[in-house]
Amino acid sequence: MKRVICFGEIMLRLNPKGYLRFTQATELEASYSGAEANVAVSLANFGFNAAFVTKVPAHDIGQCAINDLRRFGVDTAEILRGGERLGAYYVEKGASQRASKVIYDRAYSAIAGIKPGEFNWEKIFNEACWFHFTGITPALGDGTAAVTMEAVKKAKELGLTVSCDLNYRKNLWSKEKAGKVMSELMPYVDICIANEEDTADVFSIKAEGTDIDKGQLDKDAYCSVATRFAEKWPFKKIAFTLRGSISASDNEWSGMLYENGKTYFSPVYNVHIVDRVGGGDSFGAALIYAQLSGYDNQKSINFAAAASCLKHSIEHDFNLVSIDEVETLMAGNASGRVQR
Amino acid sequence: MKRVICFGEIMLRLNPKGYLRFTQATELEASYSGAEANVAVSLANFGFNAAFVTKVPAHDIGQCAINDLRRFGVDTAEILRGGERLGAYYVEKGASQRASKVIYDRAYSAIAGIKPGEFNWEKIFNEACWFHFTGITPALGDGTAAVTMEAVKKAKELGLTVSCDLNYRKNLWSKEKAGKVMSELMPYVDICIANEEDTADVFSIKAEGTDIDKGQLDKDAYCSVATRFAEKWPFKKIAFTLRGSISASDNEWSGMLYENGKTYFSPVYNVHIVDRVGGGDSFGAALIYAQLSGYDNQKSINFAAAASCLKHSIEHDFNLVSIDEVETLMAGNASGRVQR
Amino acid sequence: MKRVICFGEIMLRLNPKGYLRFTQATELEASYSGAEANVAVSLANFGFNAAFVTKVPAHDIGQCAINDLRRFGVDTAEILRGGERLGAYYVEKGASQRASKVIYDRAYSAIAGIKPGEFNWEKIFNEACWFHFTGITPALGDGTAAVTMEAVKKAKELGLTVSCDLNYRKNLWSKEKAGKVMSELMPYVDICIANEEDTADVFSIKAEGTDIDKGQLDKDAYCSVATRFAEKWPFKKIAFTLRGSISASDNEWSGMLYENGKTYFSPVYNVHIVDRVGGGDSFGAALIYAQLSGYDNQKSINFAAAASCLKHSIEHDFNLVSIDEVETLMAGNASGRVQR
Amino acid sequence: MKRVICFGEIMLRLNPKGYLRFTQATELEASYSGAEANVAVSLANFGFNAAFVTKVPAHDIGQCAINDLRRFGVDTAEILRGGERLGAYYVEKGASQRASKVIYDRAYSAIAGIKPGEFNWEKIFNEACWFHFTGITPALGDGTAAVTMEAVKKAKELGLTVSCDLNYRKNLWSKEKAGKVMSELMPYVDICIANEEDTADVFSIKAEGTDIDKGQLDKDAYCSVATRFAEKWPFKKIAFTLRGSISASDNEWSGMLYENGKTYFSPVYNVHIVDRVGGGDSFGAALIYAQLSGYDNQKSINFAAAASCLKHSIEHDFNLVSIDEVETLMAGNASGRVQR
Amino acid sequence: MKRVICFGEIMLRLNPKGYLRFTQATELEASYSGAEANVAVSLANFGFNAAFVTKVPAHDIGQCAINDLRRFGVDTAEILRGGERLGAYYVEKGASQRASKVIYDRAYSAIAGIKPGEFNWEKIFNEACWFHFTGITPALGDGTAAVTMEAVKKAKELGLTVSCDLNYRKNLWSKEKAGKVMSELMPYVDICIANEEDTADVFSIKAEGTDIDKGQLDKDAYCSVATRFAEKWPFKKIAFTLRGSISASDNEWSGMLYENGKTYFSPVYNVHIVDRVGGGDSFGAALIYAQLSGYDNQKSINFAAAASCLKHSIEHDFNLVSIDEVETLMAGNASGRVQR
Amino acid sequence: MKRVICFGEIMLRLNPKGYLRFTQATELEASYSGAEANVAVSLANFGFNAAFVTKVPAHDIGQCAINDLRRFGVDTAEILRGGERLGAYYVEKGASQRASKVIYDRAYSAIAGIKPGEFNWEKIFNEACWFHFTGITPALGDGTAAVTMEAVKKAKELGLTVSCDLNYRKNLWSKEKAGKVMSELMPYVDICIANEEDTADVFSIKAEGTDIDKGQLDKDAYCSVATRFAEKWPFKKIAFTLRGSISASDNEWSGMLYENGKTYFSPVYNVHIVDRVGGGDSFGAALIYAQLSGYDNQKSINFAAAASCLKHSIEHDFNLVSIDEVETLMAGNASGRVQR
Repeated sequence: MKRVICFGEIMLRLNPKGYLRFTQATELEASYSGAEANVAVSLANFGFNAAFVTKVPAHDIGQCAINDLRRFGVDTAEILRGGERLGAYYVEKGASQRASKVIYDRAYSAIAGIKPGEFNWEKIFNEACWFHFTGITPALGDGTAAVTMEAVKKAKELGLTVSCDLNYRKNLWSKEKAGKVMSELMPYVDICIANEEDTADVFSIKAEGTDIDKGQLDKDAYCSVATRFAEKWPFKKIAFTLRGSISASDNEWSGMLYENGKTYFSPVYNVHIVDRVGGGDSFGAALIYAQLSGYDNQKSINFAAAASCLKHSIEHDFNLVSIDEVETLMAGNASGRVQR
Repeated sequence: MKRVICFGEIMLRLNPKGYLRFTQATELEASYSGAEANVAVSLANFGFNAAFVTKVPAHDIGQCAINDLRRFGVDTAEILRGGERLGAYYVEKGASQRASKVIYDRAYSAIAGIKPGEFNWEKIFNEACWFHFTGITPALGDGTAAVTMEAVKKAKELGLTVSCDLNYRKNLWSKEKAGKVMSELMPYVDICIANEEDTADVFSIKAEGTDIDKGQLDKDAYCSVATRFAEKWPFKKIAFTLRGSISASDNEWSGMLYENGKTYFSPVYNVHIVDRVGGGDSFGAALIYAQLSGYDNQKSINFAAAASCLKHSIEHDFNLVSIDEVETLMAGNASGRVQR
Repeated sequence: MKRVICFGEIMLRLNPKGYLRFTQATELEASYSGAEANVAVSLANFGFNAAFVTKVPAHDIGQCAINDLRRFGVDTAEILRGGERLGAYYVEKGASQRASKVIYDRAYSAIAGIKPGEFNWEKIFNEACWFHFTGITPALGDGTAAVTMEAVKKAKELGLTVSCDLNYRKNLWSKEKAGKVMSELMPYVDICIANEEDTADVFSIKAEGTDIDKGQLDKDAYCSVATRFAEKWPFKKIAFTLRGSISASDNEWSGMLYENGKTYFSPVYNVHIVDRVGGGDSFGAALIYAQLSGYDNQKSINFAAAASCLKHSIEHDFNLVSIDEVETLMAGNASGRVQR
Repeated sequence: MKRVICFGEIMLRLNPKGYLRFTQATELEASYSGAEANVAVSLANFGFNAAFVTKVPAHDIGQCAINDLRRFGVDTAEILRGGERLGAYYVEKGASQRASKVIYDRAYSAIAGIKPGEFNWEKIFNEACWFHFTGITPALGDGTAAVTMEAVKKAKELGLTVSCDLNYRKNLWSKEKAGKVMSELMPYVDICIANEEDTADVFSIKAEGTDIDKGQLDKDAYCSVATRFAEKWPFKKIAFTLRGSISASDNEWSGMLYENGKTYFSPVYNVHIVDRVGGGDSFGAALIYAQLSGYDNQKSINFAAAASCLKHSIEHDFNLVSIDEVETLMAGNASGRVQR
Repeated sequence: MKRVICFGEIMLRLNPKGYLRFTQATELEASYSGAEANVAVSLANFGFNAAFVTKVPAHDIGQCAINDLRRFGVDTAEILRGGERLGAYYVEKGASQRASKVIYDRAYSAIAGIKPGEFNWEKIFNEACWFHFTGITPALGDGTAAVTMEAVKKAKELGLTVSCDLNYRKNLWSKEKAGKVMSELMPYVDICIANEEDTADVFSIKAEGTDIDKGQLDKDAYCSVATRFAEKWPFKKIAFTLRGSISASDNEWSGMLYENGKTYFSPVYNVHIVDRVGGGDSFGAALIYAQLSGYDNQKSINFAAAASCLKHSIEHDFNLVSIDEVETLMAGNASGRVQR
Repeated sequence: MKRVICFGEIMLRLNPKGYLRFTQATELEASYSGAEANVAVSLANFGFNAAFVTKVPAHDIGQCAINDLRRFGVDTAEILRGGERLGAYYVEKGASQRASKVIYDRAYSAIAGIKPGEFNWEKIFNEACWFHFTGITPALGDGTAAVTMEAVKKAKELGLTVSCDLNYRKNLWSKEKAGKVMSELMPYVDICIANEEDTADVFSIKAEGTDIDKGQLDKDAYCSVATRFAEKWPFKKIAFTLRGSISASDNEWSGMLYENGKTYFSPVYNVHIVDRVGGGDSFGAALIYAQLSGYDNQKSINFAAAASCLKHSIEHDFNLVSIDEVETLMAGNASGRVQR
C-alpha cells in the first residue's frame, strides 16, 4: 500500500445548518478539516496508506480531530499532542448571489507554535513515497515555515516525490512574505498545484484575460501562466484547478495539467453546489492518487477533475467518494441515476 | 368511494439528512414505503378507499409501518401480523454529478416469507374495483410469486381491473427468472406500467435509440416499444414514464400512454429534484386515479405526469400532493408562485 | 442616526424544516416576522435607528417576538403589551413546480384589536424622519385602519416622509374594501411601493401584456401602470418589484423606480431561491435606505433590487445582509466566490 | 370491538425541545392533542373502536390533526371540516423547582364556533356504547355547551354510558359559569372523573386538609369529597387522580375510585417525569377501558393508575403504552429492566 | 430604571446536545456567555437597565454575541469592536457520577488584549448606580487588570456601589497572582460574592470542616470564613453560594449573606440539574437586584438563592426566570405544578 | 502496548431521540455496537491495542461500522468483508416505571453466516495476549459456534488468556442449546463474566434469595453461585455485575470478583441512568484492563465497577470514559463537580 505523508493543520470547522447565516444559528455542525488533512482523507479513502502529521492539544477537542481522521482511515500515529488550542474556522454557506463566508480563528494553534526539531522526519518518512504540503502550512508562522523546510529537504534526500498546493491565504501573510518563503520551498517541489489566483498572489504571475468574478476561463491564458511558472521553478508538473463562478449555487469546474510545455485539459463540469469548501484539496489528492497509480497525464487530470467535481456535492471538507464513483463520472456518466 | 387494493411490501426507509453521505450520518430519517404502498397512499390522498395488503412483524417497528399508512388514510385492516422482520432500505440522496444510492436490506422479511392461502382474496376484494401490484412483489420469493398469482386470478374472476408496474429490480432476481414469472402474470394484467429499462430487462424489448444515461428521449422509440409490447400481451393500455437524467439534481420528466396503436404524450417537465424515489409509483397511482375517474387518455397521461412531476419536489416516497395541485400544474401553471 | 418608524403586525412564523410538507412535519422552525417588522429589521441592520410599533400579548410568546426584534437591533420601546393572541402563520416551502404555501392564523391578534388613541404618535415620531406602513396594517381591521390614518396624518403634520407598500392580501379584505380604505390613505403617501398584482387588485390598474404565472416582464407595461398610478395619487415616487416566476426554485427578480414620468430599471437577477418570503419587504426597506442616504434614482433602484435579490438566499423573513454585500452585488459581482 | 365516542377539541401543541424555555426556542415540536382526543387515542391504542368528534379547519393544519389521530388508530370519519382556525397551545417543560408552563391560543377555533345541529348524534352514536367528554368542551363557548347537552341527552336516550372529566380551566370560564353549566350536564353523567382542584373550583367541594402545592395526600379527605359529590349528583362512580407534587421532576401519583360509599385506592407511584401533560386524560381513558372490560373496582383503579403512571414517562400528550405494559406494572414490576 | 454596568468577557459557548460527550458530537449548541454578561442578562430580565461593557471582534461571530445580549434586553451600546478573536469555551454536561467538563479557548481574545484608556468610564457610568465585575476579568491579562482598576476607581469616585464575584479560575492565573491583583482591587469593593473555594484559593481563607467533594455544608465554618474575610477588607456585605454536590445530576444549593458579624442563610434547595453553569452568576445578579430593590438581608439572600436555584433548571448560562417565578419559589412553592 | 482480540458481531443500533417511543419517532440515532465490539472500544480508549474480529457486508453500511470502530481507535484490519447484511437492533429508552425496549433484527447477518476456516486465528493472535468473546457469538449460529471453538483452542494453544461474558440472549437460542454449546467452550475460559440471570439461564445455577425485578442484592447468594460455578469449570476468576433495578431511571450498580473461594465486592453506586445498554460490556472491558494492568482483585473489581458505573451516564453502547475519570470515581469522588 503506497504511503503518503501530509503535513499541516487540522481545525475544528463550525458551520450553521443548511443556508442559515451566522447571525441566525443556534447550532453549529462540527467537523474537522484542513487543506492537507483533506488530502490525507481522500488518499486513505482511495485505499492508500495516508498519514497526517500535525500537533493538536492534549484535550478532548484535539482528540476529536484525531478521531475524525481515524474514522476515515488516516494514520494518526505521528500526530504530536500539546500546545494551547486547536484552530477553528466558521463557514457560512452561500447561495445564489450570496457568497459563502469563512471566518478564521486559527491563530495561536498548537501547530502554529511548533519549532524545528519537534518532528522526526526521518522516522515519519519511513516507507513513504510522497510528501504533500500546501502554502498554508508555512504561512502559519516562522516555526511552521522552518519545519516545512526541514521536511522538504529530508523528503528530497530520501527520494520522496514532493507536491505543494500554493493555497495563498491573504489573512495569514502578505503577498511579499508569501513570495519570499514559498520561493525558498519551490526548488524542492516536484508537482505544483494552484489556481489562477494563487500564482498571481504569490509569484505575480497572472492569467491575463481572465476575470474570476465573471467566471471566464481562457485555456491559452492558463497555458501561458503554467509556462512562465515552469520557467521559474524546476517543477516536473503543474496542475491548475479552473473554477468558473456563475453563482454561489452553480460553478463550472475543470482542471489542467502541464508538463514539458504541453497542457492537458479535463472536461468542464457544471456543478450544482452542495459544499465547495475543500474542492481544491480533493483535486490535489486525486492528482496524487492518479500519479502514484501510473495514470498518464490526460487520465490524471481527468481523474482529478472528476473526483473534485464530485466533492462539490458533499457536505463538509472531506471528499468521501469512491474510486468507482470517480471512474463512472470520468467515463462520461453524469446522469445521477439512482444506484440500487 | 372507489376501492383499490394494493399488494406488496412495506419497508422501513432510512436516509441521512439532506445531502449527507451514509458514512457521515449519525442520524437517519425513518419513514416507511414500498412500491405498492406508495400507490396506496397516493390513492387515499386523492380521496379513494385504498387498502394495502401485506404482512409485517407483530413488533413495534411493524406497527410503525401500519401507523404511517393509517396516518395518510390507507385502510390497513387486511394487513397480517407475524414473521421475523420488516424489510429496510437505506437511501443516500445524490446531488449534481453524484448519484443517489439505495442499499436494500429486505431479504427474509415477513412478506417475503408468505405462503399461498395466507390471504383471503375473496374477502379482500369485496367492494373493490381495482387491483394493483408491481414486479417487485413476485420477485421477493416463490411464496409471493404464488400469492400474486392467486390474487390476479381472483381479481379477474371478480371483475376487477388489474394494473402492474414492471419495476424490475436486478438485486432481487435475474432477468431470466423475472421474464419467466412475469410472463405468467401478464395475461391477467389490464394496464401495464413500465419505464424503458423494465421492458428491456424483463422482456428484452428495447427502446432503440435511447441512452438513459445521456437522458435522450425519443418518442418514436417509445412508441415502437409499446407496440411490440402490446403485441405480446393482451394489455388494454400501456403507460411509460420517461425520465431524462441531466444530473442527480435536474431531470426531465414526462409520460406516455398507449392504447390501440395510438400514443399520448404528456408535456415534458424540467424538475429540480428534492427526492426522486417513488416518482414512478406516484405516476402509476395517478394513472389509476385518472382511469377510475373516467379521464380520456390524453388527460390521464397529463394527470399522471403532472402528479409524478410534483412528487420529485417532496421528501421521502409518498406523493403527498392534492388533486388541486396536480390540476393547477396540468393547467400549465408551473410558476411556483406562493399560495396564500 | 436616521430614525424610521414602522407600524404593523409581527407574527409567529412556523415552517417545516427544509422541503417537508405540513403533513410530514413533527417539528416547526419558529421565527417572527411581518411586512413592516421585516422593513424595520432591514433598516436596523443597515445601521439606521429603526423602531417598530405594534401591540403584542403580555405573555412569553409575545416577548419572543420582541426579543427577536431586539436581537437584530430594532427599537422595541414603543411596543404595547396586551390583547389576546399573537398572530401566526404557517409557511411550507415549495420547490420546482410545487408552489410555496402560506396559511394565515392572524385573526383576533392583539394588534388587530387596537383602537384609535392607543398609540401616542406625537411621542413616537419624535426625532423620526420617515414613517412606513403597508396595506396589510389597515386590512387587519377597522381599528388598525383608523390608527393608520391617525399615524399618516400626524406623520405628514410633523414633516416625515411616508412610504407605503400596497401589499394586498385577499384573505384579509375584499378588493372593494381595500380600494376604499387605501384610497383614503394614499394622499398622505410620498413613496408608494407595489408589485403588478397589487395595483390591479387594489386600484384596478393593470399591467397589460404581463402574465405573472408565465413570468413575462414587459417594461413598457410597467411604465404605463406607474404613469396611470401617478396620475391618480400625488406620489413623489413609485417603486415596483418585478418577479418572473420560472418555478418555485428559480425566479427572475428586478425593480423599477418611477419619478416624474421617468422610469429607472435595475438589472434583472436570476435567483436560485432559498426562501422568497419577505422579498418585497426587503426591497422596500432598501429603497427607504437608499432614499434616506441620498442615492439618485438609478442607484436607489439598483440598491433595492440587489438587497432584495440577496434576501431570496436567506432563510425566514428577515433580510440579514450587510451594506457591503449589497454593494458588491450592485457592482456586478454575482459570482458567489467564497469570502474568506 | 367496543365503540367509544369522544367529543371535544383537538389542538396543535407546540413545545420547545427538551428543557428549553419559550424565549430560547427557535424550533418547536408540533403534535396534536386535547383532553378528549387523548382519551380516544388511548382507547384506540388499547384496541377499542374509538371515534373522535370535533370540527377542524379545511386547511392543511387541520388535516395534520386528523392524520395524527388516524396514525394512532382513531376513527376520524365524523370530524367536520370548516371554521377559521385550529386552536393551539404552547407548552414549556419544567424541571426541578421550575414549573411547566402552558399558554393557550385556542379562542375562535373551529370547534369553539359550532352550533347546535351541526353534528348528527344519532348517526355518530350508532353501535357505540360509551360517550366521553370533559369540562373543557362546554367551556369553549355557548355553542359547544349546547352541543354537549345535545350529545349527553342523545347518549342517555340511546343507552350509552356517559363519562365526564371535570377538567376545570380557569382561563376558559369563571368558576360561577362552570358551576352553572356543568350542573346542568351532571345529571346525564354516569362516571365522573376529577382531581381535587376541579371539585373545589367547579362545585365548591373541597378536599380539606390537602395542600396540593405541598403534595400532601389525605385518603380520608378524598373520601369525604367523593361522598359529598355523590350526594349532589347521581353518579354511578367517581374517580379521582391524586397527584403529589414534589417538584416539576418528581411526583407521586395514584388514583381513587368511589362507588356506593366505598373507596378503592390504587398503589402510589413515585414518578420521574418525562412529560406530565395528558396524565389525567390517560387515567380517564384507562378507567373507561377497565370498566368496559368488566374489571372490578379495585382492578379498575389499579389499571387506571398504572396506565397513567406510565403516561408520565412519555413525551407529548398521547399515552402510547400497551396493555401488556400496564399489566406488568400493575403486577408490581416497576423495575424498568430492559425488555429484549 | 436602575442602571447597572457589568464589565468582562463574553464568549461563544459550544456544547454537545443532551448528555453526549465531546467525542460523540457532530453538532454543537452555540450560545454566548460570560460571568459578568450572565449577570447583565439577569438584571435586564428583571427589568433593570443593564449595560455590558466588553470588546468583541468586528466580525459576524462578534456580532452574534452582541445580538444575543440585545435579544435579552442588555444595553450593548458601550461594547467596543475590534481585536482578533472572540473567546470560546466548550461544555460537556455531566450526569450521575460523571462530572461536567469545561474546556476553555479564551486566550488572545479581543477583551484580553485591551489597554488602559480604551473605555471612557466617565461616560459609561453616566446615570449608573452599580458596577459589577468578577475575578475573571483581571485574570485575563495585565491589560484587563489595569482597566478593571480604572473602572473601580472611577466607580467609587462617582459614588456607584461596586460588587465583585471572586470567581477564581486556576487555568487563567496562579493563586499567587490572583491574590496579589485581587488584593489591590478589594478596597474598592462594597459587596463581595464568593464560594468556599474562591476564598481559599485567592486569599487562603479556608472554610474548615467542609469537603466540597463530599457535599458537606457547615454553617459555622462559613460564618468563620466570612468573619475573617470581613476583617481583611472593608466590605459592606459578603455573600456565599453554598453548593452540596451529591452528583452531577443532583445538588444541594443555598446561600449566605453576611453583614456586621451577622449571617443570614437561605433555605436549602435540592436541585435536579438541567444545567448548572452560570449558577453562581445568577446568584450574584439576584443579590444585586435585591439590594437595589431595598430588600432586607434575609429577603435578599432568599431571593438570590431562589433565583439561582431556578437557574439550575435552565439550559445554557443565562438565567431566564421572571421575578414572579422567583417569588413563587421564595414563598415556598417548589411543587412545579403546571402554570396554565 | 498490550494487544487484545475481541470476536463477535457489530450491529447498527437505531434509537429514537431522548425518551420518544418507537411509534413517535421520525428520526433514529444511528450508532454501531455489539457486546464484544463495545469491549474492544473500551480497551482501545484505555490505551490498549484492541482488535475487533468480525465480518461485515462490503457495502457502505458495513463501512460505517468499521469507521465507527476506527474512530475510537480499534484495529479493524482483521475484519472480513462480505455477506448479505449487517445486523441491526432498535432501542427505545425507558424512564421511570417504563422499561427500555430492545428489538433485534440480527438474523442472517454476515457474521452469523461465517464458516470454520474463514478467519486465520494464528495470524490474528500474533502479538496478542488476551482473547475475549461472549455467549452471544456462538448463539448466532452453528458457524459462529464452530469458529468460536476454533478461536479458543488456538488462543489457549498460543498462551493467550481467554475471557467470556456469558451474555445469554433468549431470542437467539434456547437455554438447552446455550447450556450445551457453552459447556463445550467453558474449559478454555480463564475468566468468566456473568450476571445473576446468565448463570441461571445457561447453567441452571441460581442465586437464591434474589429477585432481580425487586432489585434486591444478596452478597451471600452471589458468593454461593460463584462457588458452585467455580466447581463446575476450571475458571481462574469469576466476575459478576450486580444490578439493583429501582426503576428505568435509577439503578444500583456494583460488581463482585471471585477467586479461590474468596469474593471481592466493589462499592455500590446509585446511578441516575442516561443509557444503560452496554453497561455489562464496559464492566468486562474494565476488568480485562485491570487484570492486564496487574491490579489486585479488590482494585480490579473496584475499577470495573467504577468504569461501568460511569457507562450508565453515557449515550449509546460505547463506554467513552478516561482512566482518569474512572480513578477519580474509584477514589471516592462521585460529586460530579465541574471539571474546568
